[in-house]
This record gives sequence, C-alpha cells and structure tokens, in this order.
Amino acid sequence: MKRNRIERIGIGVDVGGTNIVCGAVTEDGEVAAVLKRPTDARQGPEAVIGRIAAMVREVVGRLGDAAARVAAVGVGTPGLVDPERGVTLFAGNLGWRNVPLAERLGAAVGLPVCADNDVRMYVYGEYLRGAAAGERHVLGVTVGTGLACAVVEGGRLYYGGGFMAGELGHIRFPDIPYACGCGLTGCLETAASATGIVRQAVDQLKAGRDSALRALCPDGDWERLTAAHVSEGARRGDPLCADVMRRTGDWLGRGLAIAATLFSPDVIVVGGGAALAGDWLLGPARRRLEEDLMADYRKRLRLVRARRIEDAGVVGSALYALQRANLSGG
Amino acid sequence: MKRNRIERIGIGVDVGGTNIVCGAVTEDGEVAAVLKRPTDARQGPEAVIGRIAAMVREVVGRLGDAAARVAAVGVGTPGLVDPERGVTLFAGNLGWRNVPLAERLGAAVGLPVCADNDVRMYVYGEYLRGAAAGERHVLGVTVGTGLACAVVEGGRLYYGGGFMAGELGHIRFPDIPYACGCGLTGCLETAASATGIVRQAVDQLKAGRDSALRALCPDGDWERLTAAHVSEGARRGDPLCADVMRRTGDWLGRGLAIAATLFSPDVIVVGGGAALAGDWLLGPARRRLEEDLMADYRKRLRLVRARRIEDAGVVGSALYALQRANLSGG
Repeated sequence: MKRNRIERIGIGVDVGGTNIVCGAVTEDGEVAAVLKRPTDARQGPEAVIGRIAAMVREVVGRLGDAAARVAAVGVGTPGLVDPERGVTLFAGNLGWRNVPLAERLGAAVGLPVCADNDVRMYVYGEYLRGAAAGERHVLGVTVGTGLACAVVEGGRLYYGGGFMAGELGHIRFPDIPYACGCGLTGCLETAASATGIVRQAVDQLKAGRDSALRALCPDGDWERLTAAHVSEGARRGDPLCADVMRRTGDWLGRGLAIAATLFSPDVIVVGGGAALAGDWLLGPARRRLEEDLMADYRKRLRLVRARRIEDAGVVGSALYALQRANLSGG
Repeated sequence: MKRNRIERIGIGVDVGGTNIVCGAVTEDGEVAAVLKRPTDARQGPEAVIGRIAAMVREVVGRLGDAAARVAAVGVGTPGLVDPERGVTLFAGNLGWRNVPLAERLGAAVGLPVCADNDVRMYVYGEYLRGAAAGERHVLGVTVGTGLACAVVEGGRLYYGGGFMAGELGHIRFPDIPYACGCGLTGCLETAASATGIVRQAVDQLKAGRDSALRALCPDGDWERLTAAHVSEGARRGDPLCADVMRRTGDWLGRGLAIAATLFSPDVIVVGGGAALAGDWLLGPARRRLEEDLMADYRKRLRLVRARRIEDAGVVGSALYALQRANLSGG
C-alpha cells in the first residue's frame, strides 16, 4: 500500500562547526543521497550558504524521477535560531550573527526553507523516527562539543522566550571548576561533554597520573587527545579513562535528573558524538538518576541512547520542514 | 461597551492543607463573594468535597441575579492531579489518593467542574490577571509549605508526562543537608520554602546563636515559630533572621536560575505565602540570578512578586474552568 502513495521528500541539512551533512528524507524517515562536506566557516556565511545550496542541488539531482517529490528544505545550525523568520541570530562556532539563512538559501534553491536550532532538529528526528518514536513527552540531549537539550511535548517542540529554552549545558554546578565560553564558571557542559571529557583527562595527566593516554601524546601535546581516545581507553581498562568517563556520566546524570524533575519526560534520549561511548556514559548517568530522582519520576522514566546518532539532525530538519511547508499550504 | 456584554462567571476553589478558599470570578478577573473555611482534611475526602459543594452553593447564592451567569467550577488541590479526568491522584497533605474530585463535586453542584494542581492554577491566575498578564512565556513559583513551579507557554500550561512537570522543590542541592518528605535528601524545598525558613532558624537557635526569636519561644518550644516571624525579625534588624532570609533567597535564586535556563521565560513570578517577605527574599534571589544566568537570559528576564498573592489560585481555577467549559462546548 505504502509504495503506491506518493510520498513527499524533504532535504535535511545539519550544519556543524566542522562539517555540513545533507540528505534526502522520505516521510517514512528513509535517508538517501547523503553528502558530507567541510563547513569552512571562516569563509563567511555567504560562502557557507552557497556550499549548502550546491549540496542541496546535488542531493536533489541524485534522486532522479523522485526529485519532483522534494517539497521543502530544513536546516539545523548551532546556536540561537529564530525559526519563525529562519534567521540564525548567533552561532559562536560558525561566527554567524543575524544570518537570514532561510531567505538566502530559499532564493538559491527555489524551495521553501526552514531554519532551526540543530539540537531541536536532532531531538525531533529521534522523536519522529528514532529512539523516542511514539512517545508523547520527550527530552533529548546531545552530548558533543557542548551539551544542550530539547523537549517535544505532545508533538510540539518547546522553544521558550527568545527561542532560548534548553541550555542544560549552562546550569552551574559548584563543584565544576572550569570557566565556560559563556562567561560563567562551572557550567555543566564544561565537564559533561566531549570537550569536558578531554579537559578532565588532560587535568589528570598534567597532575602526573599514569595512563595509556600518555603514549598518544609523546611530547605532552595534549591537543591531540579526543573524547573517543578517552572512551576507548576506558573500554581497554585504563583507570584514568574509566574514572573520567564515570565522572562525566555522573555529571550528565545530575543534569538529566534536574531536567527530568522540571520537564517530566516519558523518555530521555541521549545523542551526539559522545553518546557513542554508550554505557560508559549512560551507566553512571542511570545510577545518578536513581539517586537524584523522586520515586514517581524513576518509576516511569526510560533513559536510552539515540538510535540515529549519525543522521537524526538530517531526518529531523527534513521532516520538520515538510510539516511546516504543509501547515503553511506549501 | 464591556458592561453591555454578558460576562460569564466561574467559581474558583483553592483547596489547601489548612483552608479552602472559594470565590466567584468574572472573565475580567474581578473576584466576589469569597469564603474561607477550614479544610479539616482528617474527615476524609467525602466530607471535604461536601464542604466544597456547600461553599460553591453559598457563593453562587450570594450572586443574586448574576448566579445565572455561573458557567463552571475550577478546583485546585495540592499534589498530583490528572486534569483530563479531574482526579486528584495523590495529595500528601490532604491524605488523598485517587479522589475523583471533578465527578463528585460536579454531581453535587450540577455544574461542569475542572480539577487541577493548585500551583498550576495559581500561576495561571497570575498569567491571566496578575503580574504576568500579557506575557507569552511565564514561569511562576509558589514558595509556601513547599516549593513548585508551573510554566505557561503561549497561553498553554505545560504538564509533562504524568502531569508531573515543575517539581522545582525536588531538585537536589549537595549543600542542603535536610531530609525531604519525598525520601531524598537535599531537596531545594527543604530550605527554600516557609518550612525551610523555620528549619534554618531553629537550627541556628539550637546551635546557640542569639536572636530576638528566642523571646517568642521561652521554653525552647520552637514549634511556635513561623516563617512570618523570621521575615519580621529580618525587617527589624535581627541578624539571625536576616541571614536566614538571605540564604533562603539565595537558594531560591539558584533554583530559579536553573528553571530559567531550561524554560527560558520572559518573566518569573514569585508567589505563595513566603513571597509576602518581598525583597527580603527577592533581593538575594535577584543577585543570585545575576551570578548564575548567562547574559542572554539576564538581559530579557524580569523577576517579580505575584500581584494576587491571596487569590491567584481562585482566579486561575475559575478562569481555566471557564475556558475549558468553552472548549468542550459547555
């Protein structure tokens, strides 16, 4: 039956500080013709938008006859985005301020374009076609360079005033000693993130603690270390790495307990690059939730890893754009 | 013009652990015929519902000709309430479990009845006709026996899974030493509440610190102390009382900073009995928000005292019930 229905296709774009990922997504959530290119944000927003437009055209071109079914483009960018006007208001790691992304990209590709925050689009993808499919109250977090959350409540994304809800990474913890790029000290994301994992490991290496990580940085060149190294070290039984992952998971759990107590989700989905560490991160987070959550929440809450860690952002952007094009009669 | 329109009237009921307040509310938010009676929860839910029904009938009776315009009854109770079925699922300080309040009260008074959580109704009252009138993103907290918050986003109350969102009082703080009735230790409401104010003052008195409060409890009978005594002591310059209010306001501010970072409201309204302390509580809370909030939030956020500290619950319950009766064609 399904094959006979004419399914629309959305193009989803996930703009990161390092790479742009672009793909075609059917309403069922099937992804095709995925491209990945460097963002090269230093060239400025016009160049980046031109690159996105070329990627969108290339993806559409690869669809053959199905290209006629492409109905909308959705783009997720980091930072603060006004989804009503399609403007990226501020994105530190792109160096963007007030970039009218939807308008410019729409003019370039001749399709309706929606722009939104990348974490919201990622969580929306997990809600529609990932680990939270079918749930009514969803809290999703992405643990990557930073830490942020988004909430879907009865099918609707929660935005808050100024579209600024969900900055879980900027809750302050008195026992986190690190200065944050936002100007505060002790923000959760300075510890509970890929960046935070590296920071904690380097702290301990500098303090002289032994670890297999030392072999990776023969001249004390700690900049080479990544969160994947630490996570892999933990897997191989390195005590320093295991400690860092445990502490990070515990901090993540403390943040999630707070968010769960305020939002009361049915399910928490943990995604982003650091979620690839799986139970090394989620195990301690679950134990912390057991300790920090009231029984009424504990009983009903599930904590799961994202199912589409790689493409939830593309899927969410594409399908959200299709929905919005639909609502506006497009 | 307004005088010529036939305004509907809602009956609002606020059921507390100590008293029931009931009044008639016009769509403009004018309150009339207010009654206050002891709850006497020990007599059981049937007796309490009977008392509420008698109060509703008495209030309606006092309206004279206007009684014909009464269209709905709204009731707020503490604890966990299912507003879709109108059932108080659990209310510790009433001793209620699975009480079908809307159905029973509706049968008794012959009007459509909505039941909901008292904090949500209070915040909804402040949103419609109080200090947050006209705002789009509202976070309201009540500081009383406990501490809880509710959010109105674009006119809609946020409920979360199991209708359990907003338990700000049950976020754990490592530096709060008190055991909470919920089974956890360090819950924010054990310190940042009327109960918490008394608890902190008694702690210091027992530790031997001097204070004018001692004169109120000649035999070390600390049970006599109320939060109002401590607040009044602070106003009169008693150092112990001033310290307790400052620490309480600071803790409140830490909780509010967390909630603001996750919900991103335009305004935070602080209500409940302890809000009568005004700047003794809100001053330190504002200072803490300056320290704990990212600049983007600080710039746009207002922290204000509730405008209808005494009757926001009655107003919110009544007007929410009118709206829901409207939606369901009643």
